[in-house]
Amino acid sequence: MRSYSRKYEIVFEEARGTLVWDADGREYMDFLAGAGSLNYGHNDPDMAEALVAHIRRGGIAQGLDLFTRPKMEFLETFEGLVLEPRSMDYRIHFTGPTGTNAVEAALKLARKATGRRNVIAFTNGFHGVSQGALAATGNRDHRMGGATVSLPDVTRLPYDGYLGGSVDTSELLERVLSDPSSGVDAPAAILLETVQGEGGLNVASRPWLRRVAAIAKANGALLIVDDIQAGVGRTGSFFSFEGMGVTPDLVTLSKSISGFGLPMSLLLIKPEFDVWKPGEHNGTFRGNAHAFVTARVALEKFWGDRSFQHEIERSSALVGERLARIARLVPGATVKGRGMMQGIDVRDGDVAAEICRRSAQRRLIIESAGPKDEVIKILAPLTTSEQILNRGLDILEESAAAGLHAVA
Amino acid sequence: MRSYSRKYEIVFEEARGTLVWDADGREYMDFLAGAGSLNYGHNDPDMAEALVAHIRRGGIAQGLDLFTRPKMEFLETFEGLVLEPRSMDYRIHFTGPTGTNAVEAALKLARKATGRRNVIAFTNGFHGVSQGALAATGNRDHRMGGATVSLPDVTRLPYDGYLGGSVDTSELLERVLSDPSSGVDAPAAILLETVQGEGGLNVASRPWLRRVAAIAKANGALLIVDDIQAGVGRTGSFFSFEGMGVTPDLVTLSKSISGFGLPMSLLLIKPEFDVWKPGEHNGTFRGNAHAFVTARVALEKFWGDRSFQHEIERSSALVGERLARIARLVPGATVKGRGMMQGIDVRDGDVAAEICRRSAQRRLIIESAGPKDEVIKILAPLTTSEQILNRGLDILEESAAAGLHAVA
Amino acid sequence: MRSYSRKYEIVFEEARGTLVWDADGREYMDFLAGAGSLNYGHNDPDMAEALVAHIRRGGIAQGLDLFTRPKMEFLETFEGLVLEPRSMDYRIHFTGPTGTNAVEAALKLARKATGRRNVIAFTNGFHGVSQGALAATGNRDHRMGGATVSLPDVTRLPYDGYLGGSVDTSELLERVLSDPSSGVDAPAAILLETVQGEGGLNVASRPWLRRVAAIAKANGALLIVDDIQAGVGRTGSFFSFEGMGVTPDLVTLSKSISGFGLPMSLLLIKPEFDVWKPGEHNGTFRGNAHAFVTARVALEKFWGDRSFQHEIERSSALVGERLARIARLVPGATVKGRGMMQGIDVRDGDVAAEICRRSAQRRLIIESAGPKDEVIKILAPLTTSEQILNRGLDILEESAAAGLHAVA
Amino acid sequence: MRSYSRKYEIVFEEARGTLVWDADGREYMDFLAGAGSLNYGHNDPDMAEALVAHIRRGGIAQGLDLFTRPKMEFLETFEGLVLEPRSMDYRIHFTGPTGTNAVEAALKLARKATGRRNVIAFTNGFHGVSQGALAATGNRDHRMGGATVSLPDVTRLPYDGYLGGSVDTSELLERVLSDPSSGVDAPAAILLETVQGEGGLNVASRPWLRRVAAIAKANGALLIVDDIQAGVGRTGSFFSFEGMGVTPDLVTLSKSISGFGLPMSLLLIKPEFDVWKPGEHNGTFRGNAHAFVTARVALEKFWGDRSFQHEIERSSALVGERLARIARLVPGATVKGRGMMQGIDVRDGDVAAEICRRSAQRRLIIESAGPKDEVIKILAPLTTSEQILNRGLDILEESAAAGLHAVA
Repeated sequence: MRSYSRKYEIVFEEARGTLVWDADGREYMDFLAGAGSLNYGHNDPDMAEALVAHIRRGGIAQGLDLFTRPKMEFLETFEGLVLEPRSMDYRIHFTGPTGTNAVEAALKLARKATGRRNVIAFTNGFHGVSQGALAATGNRDHRMGGATVSLPDVTRLPYDGYLGGSVDTSELLERVLSDPSSGVDAPAAILLETVQGEGGLNVASRPWLRRVAAIAKANGALLIVDDIQAGVGRTGSFFSFEGMGVTPDLVTLSKSISGFGLPMSLLLIKPEFDVWKPGEHNGTFRGNAHAFVTARVALEKFWGDRSFQHEIERSSALVGERLARIARLVPGATVKGRGMMQGIDVRDGDVAAEICRRSAQRRLIIESAGPKDEVIKILAPLTTSEQILNRGLDILEESAAAGLHAVA
Repeated sequence: MRSYSRKYEIVFEEARGTLVWDADGREYMDFLAGAGSLNYGHNDPDMAEALVAHIRRGGIAQGLDLFTRPKMEFLETFEGLVLEPRSMDYRIHFTGPTGTNAVEAALKLARKATGRRNVIAFTNGFHGVSQGALAATGNRDHRMGGATVSLPDVTRLPYDGYLGGSVDTSELLERVLSDPSSGVDAPAAILLETVQGEGGLNVASRPWLRRVAAIAKANGALLIVDDIQAGVGRTGSFFSFEGMGVTPDLVTLSKSISGFGLPMSLLLIKPEFDVWKPGEHNGTFRGNAHAFVTARVALEKFWGDRSFQHEIERSSALVGERLARIARLVPGATVKGRGMMQGIDVRDGDVAAEICRRSAQRRLIIESAGPKDEVIKILAPLTTSEQILNRGLDILEESAAAGLHAVA
Repeated sequence: MRSYSRKYEIVFEEARGTLVWDADGREYMDFLAGAGSLNYGHNDPDMAEALVAHIRRGGIAQGLDLFTRPKMEFLETFEGLVLEPRSMDYRIHFTGPTGTNAVEAALKLARKATGRRNVIAFTNGFHGVSQGALAATGNRDHRMGGATVSLPDVTRLPYDGYLGGSVDTSELLERVLSDPSSGVDAPAAILLETVQGEGGLNVASRPWLRRVAAIAKANGALLIVDDIQAGVGRTGSFFSFEGMGVTPDLVTLSKSISGFGLPMSLLLIKPEFDVWKPGEHNGTFRGNAHAFVTARVALEKFWGDRSFQHEIERSSALVGERLARIARLVPGATVKGRGMMQGIDVRDGDVAAEICRRSAQRRLIIESAGPKDEVIKILAPLTTSEQILNRGLDILEESAAAGLHAVA
Repeated sequence: MRSYSRKYEIVFEEARGTLVWDADGREYMDFLAGAGSLNYGHNDPDMAEALVAHIRRGGIAQGLDLFTRPKMEFLETFEGLVLEPRSMDYRIHFTGPTGTNAVEAALKLARKATGRRNVIAFTNGFHGVSQGALAATGNRDHRMGGATVSLPDVTRLPYDGYLGGSVDTSELLERVLSDPSSGVDAPAAILLETVQGEGGLNVASRPWLRRVAAIAKANGALLIVDDIQAGVGRTGSFFSFEGMGVTPDLVTLSKSISGFGLPMSLLLIKPEFDVWKPGEHNGTFRGNAHAFVTARVALEKFWGDRSFQHEIERSSALVGERLARIARLVPGATVKGRGMMQGIDVRDGDVAAEICRRSAQRRLIIESAGPKDEVIKILAPLTTSEQILNRGLDILEESAAAGLHAVA
């Protein structure tokens, strides 16, 4: 069941920011960042400090869903620094501390709120591998893991751009929902990522998102944005859908929300859809107080003003430019993605694998994504300095050139 | 979605061992222990120390499924202190760090390994609330949470004792599996808890477990023991099935495995059933290194010799005796459970709720379980001193007498 | 896909009553009777006459669900001769003209009427092989036919007597429905045969049926009696549940309802549960007017007074006595069933097959049923004369003795 | 549950060819023709004659799946007049005698043969309402009939022309099947009608059909043509897919196959996919010998040479021309369909209903189809004389003009 570890037969030991050291003291640059769960890099000193202080004082670690001070403080900070400045009104549900659990909770709630069963999900979407979430996940290997069971109650439709630039795929969505004979049942929810991380850095356009949101509304379906990978600053803003002109009914957050890589998830719920009964969707680890501590510090440190967003913008521009240059080294390659969630589609999984392998030899940890793992994906911490970003991209550039020849 | 917190409108702040303090410095005894995830009590000082040291040195926190030093050390320790002394041969799969995820992984693997779909689960079983696990969970409120979706591919059969002492329910299991016209499809797995924690402290007998294990084997089904609540010492031994004469094919562990209440789960797999392909059942938080650190210390501190088991035995005896006395205060009440997982069935959820409420007023945190929440359940940390145990049980005794009158 | 035809490599040509002739003029006795669809024997002359007259006059043959004279006349006759004398108040829904379709309609209607999904069905039940009905059918070979799809939303419970005489299986039914943690969801319907034809002639007792009916009522579930094989006189009365003290909410009829072996099915619906919208469960062949013509004649000829029922009683007694004698020839064999739906359980499918094979050689067409095809089943036309009954049973008796030795 | 009968509160009594008479002797023209099950009109005299002779001689009526003379003769005739002249090699499986049952059998067999679960079906497809078939049917009212159950294991894709003339929808089919991350699982089958009868007379083009067939083959999926409504001459040739350059792996036939409106269905199976075990998909009424008798006569009378096809061609041309003229009376109306399966899309279900109602008053029985019942569909018997066709179309023309004003 190891996947990343098969490629890196190294024992990692210490880490700080974008750098990681193995047991022999060798230094690596980490452009994978806990699969997007380390947007602020490894072991941020302020979070570490706060967490150590919490432990030292005997602060509660596991609080179930009871009120604990770290939880209250996180909630206040999230309200004050995230929701209020964006004029958002959401209730916060701490689900089991994994992304797949947040998705399970979102689907359950949407179905309960609407009394409907069907959920619209999109080609190349990734939403987790527990059974309910897996039904919405596109990846065949994951879907076949459980082999023998059906994954019902999800209708799959083409994501923005799936049929090329000339076909607006939201047309089909609208058509099947307005046609009483389409065979697509009225949906409880439309579930999407604004940028498909695992799916290969496919980006939904603003007009497409707005149209999909309008279709959801017109059809009585909840719009769920799965912001587990694209959220918490990855695309440049706290939520990936900011500036897109849409307000999701439910939002899933996980991965980087704790700031420190600790397991934590939450579901944002528009108040009118908070139809949970007490304890209906429960779980032992909903009250991971260590994660609440670091999550609060992360918000205070990075989201109190707009300077962090400007920093991400600068880094994104740098990454975009460098990737464009690197893409020219690989015939047919293109740059995909948005913000600090960009990469190069080299159109061939073997080529991508070879480039990643060569990068790893040069001590750059980097991974590929996409249906055939053909998109080399930069998920560097958002806090990575310009210097280290350039250093990593230099390695990628060398590996791309080399990699190409090796395969050809 | 709050369940526990509805009952305790208190902000908890600090905790040590069995004691918890709220924001105003009031002290509580915790006989809920993180719903069984704090078997060693809150904030064990040795684990805290090791964790602080790890953080201080910049030890990696989130390692995905990469090799990290804390993971390697945990694996070695688990092998050396748990598996080897018990002559057990299991592979260890770190699933997403929640119990429900471990169950999802177990069911998926059993289905893949056998090419079958159906899973036998039992009345009053609890295995989690993500969709795959939920299908195996008996609780109606949880099942109805997602309301509109089917929960297929599980056959429900009566647990040991479900039809009273005179009916051996394993008879029905054997019958339906040997009858080609029973309507019960050949199962991939038989999934059970040896003591049903949420289901009301129902205890499976050794002969029943042995017979069920034999039936599983005879029918080509994997035996999965869900040891999430009953494992890690709760019933007296590390695994709840020790001494029962059965060797499960798959075992799920979670809750107390980290020792510190941190999210962590694992699935033990007999080597012959480890049919995973790389990355087939993945998840971001499988490499929670903080949990690996405390989990290792927990094993070293408590499972290096048999003294801790003896301690649990003594506490269990004490709890059993005191509960028997308390049960006599409530007409019709009986003691249920095994080890440090015992309780009183007062046959009425309102009576149980009232007793718990009164206990809470006296600063004893305690919860009920069972189909109608009619079983008051002692889940005190296994490390609770005799003195505190008695103090808590004194409160329970007072509340039981008082509670009864209040309702009557 | 041939099943019966594999055993009888004969081309059948003509038939009258209980007798059938092959292409070479050889005469057979038919104790299979169209798998129970020829309760009045082959080619009843009055029905034949009426059908020929209908065709000759250009009477409509296929009327969809339009009003046609044959349909109106059948409805009036059914009302007058079947429902009124029994003080029954049912609406009649002509479903697609097969038993499985009537079951599909019944399950659909029960689910719609209750807003629930789950259906209780029993071990060894047989209700058809289209997907919805198949979910309720117990037979493994049939269930595995579609191999890869789930058959959800049915809970399987033990039929009367399934665990031997000392266990009242309705206890388990009651228990799981009253236990909110049993894992058995509130049912839309309880679906049963009063005598399980394909399941091996298992007979539900009057007390069990009454208790199950009471449990259904108490739990808001519809009681559906599948009377496709046991109805239309097979057990002695028109409906198999007459005299049992139960009034089903829905009743499926098919097989012998047309009287002539023509495809026809209907669903009886208590008026309060007739929640269909127009055309919701449709089908091209619901208006098989030929079948309506013969069905009307059958009712007029056989159900205008009680003489036919007395005839069945006499035949049933004869069959019962002779079978008891034959059973003594086979060690361990027992007589099972009720009315003209009796047989011998020889406890071994190979023995039963051999006996049937020998009977066929002696020109008696007879089949076995049960989980392992171990029950030789007499489904002779109800109109079979005493002489022919005895002749057939003589052959069975000879074959039983012979058959036993052959296998032993 | 009445649908057609709600509109025609008339008791039909006799019928011949395209004409039907009610109980008061009023004559109607039947352009509905048993929903396409009376392609040769009502009560063809040669079939009637043969059927009467069969009944008179005591010919077997109900033969289960045993060999009977009528079945053998039908099989020989079908082989000789249908399969051989078209160089087709199919095995014939008599399923339960309804279209939905043939579809259930086809899906079951495809899943068994491939070991896969998923089936591709198309928008606006209609394949029946039993649960397995219903999953493939697009119509929302039918799908919602069973309300509470899921209809899994079908992926819905847009039919030819669904997104207008400029989008080739087979592109999406090809894309999702070649993309391992599309979320569309490898299909057991692609199920389609070449002309969607209930779906509104949508016609698949030859290139689209060929491409879909090629995609099926390339992806290891069986191509199933549901020819229940479009087959048996309706589009001009015996099978609707003749001349399309595709050879389906499975073909379902029903409706008009008996020639007389009697219930009968069959599944044609390419020999390599005949993986049934004996009795796996069974049913009581598979041996409807009356239907076999008339079905044989129908083949002999109409399919011995090409004259009937030429007749259909002439009638189709006539219908097409007249409909084009009628369509001009209704703003925005267009002619749809192929062969004797044409109609007018008036773009408004109320307009269509009004036109049908007016036609009914003028004694023309005619129905509408399509997602919103907006397509008036001519399903006149293929044997309808030019004179009667014109008479019926005159009525439709008058009603169309009148109908339009009434609504406007």
